[in-house]
Formats: sequence, C-alpha cells, structure tokens
Amino acid sequence: MPLRPPALDPATLAPRTDSGYPEPYRSRVLPREKRQLGKALGLRQFGVNLTTLPPGKESSMRHWHTHEEEFVYVLEGEVVLRTDAGEQVLVAGACAGFPAGSGDGHQLVNRSDRPAVYLEVGSSHAADAVFYPNADVDMHYDPAVHDGRFTRKDGTPY
Amino acid sequence: MPLRPPALDPATLAPRTDSGYPEPYRSRVLPREKRQLGKALGLRQFGVNLTTLPPGKESSMRHWHTHEEEFVYVLEGEVVLRTDAGEQVLVAGACAGFPAGSGDGHQLVNRSDRPAVYLEVGSSHAADAVFYPNADVDMHYDPAVHDGRFTRKDGTPY
Repeated sequence: MPLRPPALDPATLAPRTDSGYPEPYRSRVLPREKRQLGKALGLRQFGVNLTTLPPGKESSMRHWHTHEEEFVYVLEGEVVLRTDAGEQVLVAGACAGFPAGSGDGHQLVNRSDRPAVYLEVGSSHAADAVFYPNADVDMHYDPAVHDGRFTRKDGTPY
Repeated sequence: MPLRPPALDPATLAPRTDSGYPEPYRSRVLPREKRQLGKALGLRQFGVNLTTLPPGKESSMRHWHTHEEEFVYVLEGEVVLRTDAGEQVLVAGACAGFPAGSGDGHQLVNRSDRPAVYLEVGSSHAADAVFYPNADVDMHYDPAVHDGRFTRKDGTPY
C-alpha cells in the first residue's frame, strides 16, 4: 500500500530540475534533480531536498548564507566538499553543516563516475542574502536587490 | 584522513542515551541512541540527530508540537509510524514530516528484530509545548510550567 501523509515515499515525487542561476553557472549544476520532501510534507520552517547530482556536476557555486543554515547527509555515491578547510571526500554516511554568516563558501562536486544522492536541509529566512566568495564566480543574491533575482557582484542584473 | 569541520563522520560522535521522560515512559524509549549531528556542526536553527532505535523500543510517546516542526528519514531497518492516519511501515528511504500544531500525535516503534536507524530533523522554538494525546500517556511539556520539566496532564510534577 502506498504511504500516505504524514509519511511519504520520495520516489513518488517528480524532481525539480530547474535552477535560478544565470549562465555560465546554470550549466554547471544541471541536470541536478531535487525532490522537495519537506514541501510535500507541508513543512515551512525548513526545507528538505533529496538531491541527485550527476557525475561532473556541482551542487551550487561555492556560497554562504547570511541568515540560513544548511546541512547535508550523503546517502549514495560520493561528493567532494569544497570549503576554506580544503577539499574533503564525503561518502555515504558522512555529513556536513554550514552555520549562517560563516563567510566560508561551500559546494559539493561530483567527481566520480556515478550519481551521488544526498539529503539537504536548509532553514528559511526572508532576509537571507547569499555571497559567492570565489573570484571566478560573479554572482550575488539579495532579496532586496533587483527583485530578488541573481545579480553580478556589483548589483547589476544578468 | 578523518573529516574536519564543516564535515563530520557521525561515527566519531558519542551517542546520547538519556531521556528527560519520567517512568514508565523512559523505559519504553531507552536505550535509544542519538548522535547530535547538527549540534556538533554548530547549527542552531534546527537539530539533526542520527538515531538508532533497538528492537521493541519507541522513538517517543505519541506527541505533537505547538511550534516546532519535525522530519524523519529512515536509513536502515524499519519502523512503524503511528499517527491518526493509522500505522504505516517505513523502510529505508521512506520519510515523514510533522508540521507544528497539527494536533496529530506521532511516534515511531521498532517492531522488527534488528536496530532501526533514522535521521531526525527538528526546528527549535523557545515557546514550544508538547502534547501527548493518547489517553494512556499522562504527560505534558510546556516550558512555562514546572520549570520546563515534564508534568502530568493536570500540570502536577512527577
């Protein structure tokens, strides 16, 4: 019998495969798949995504949040976590957490030859802004700038 | 090389094996093990526990929160989820979510013959109170009553 609320079989959810990123960053993350478990279960205080990252793809550009916290737990395959602490390989059963306002950008990169699957949890905060510290990523997100769309670091729109 | 912050190998954490429950409820949940991943990673907006529930044990008494949301994702073994929707078996890869204020108490019970392992995520709210709707569970939690310790439903202390 299929699961019914408040339970959920993630396989029954259609994945989101879009991204708000402008190019050239968009192509570096897609076709990443996100199944929005928390949203499907009616949660509002934090989001939970079951994410599949294909070989060669990045979870996001390296970034940090001013107000929102994030957590990831690897379920299948492996990813490389990139932060100021260097690169670390996270295999199934490993996790990582990113407090708000750290100033330390993070991203996951799948350098293996098979899909990686992980859970990602993130709190939600209306005032949250996102910084992309790497010099080669000219992107910024602030809900108060340019109608909450991604801009270049100088605030100009894409 | 061991993982270093912001990454974490959960196996390196000593589990919490205590419970704030009074008897006879305490014995129904222990020796449940909780590894507090979120706390170890410096997260403050939500908690993440990696929990091992032995055969025959309950995750908690059936309860619901006034302000806090909860989410569980089963990693190993199986548990029975008990809610107003009835009983449902959650195997590895299944999840469930519990919005605040639902009035629908939930608990997980391990009726199998091997340990069940799951991730549990919960938001944090200072005003949160917990109701235990089942008639056979005489317990209540409100931070404003009895110094934030568990009481009977009439507010008297254990």
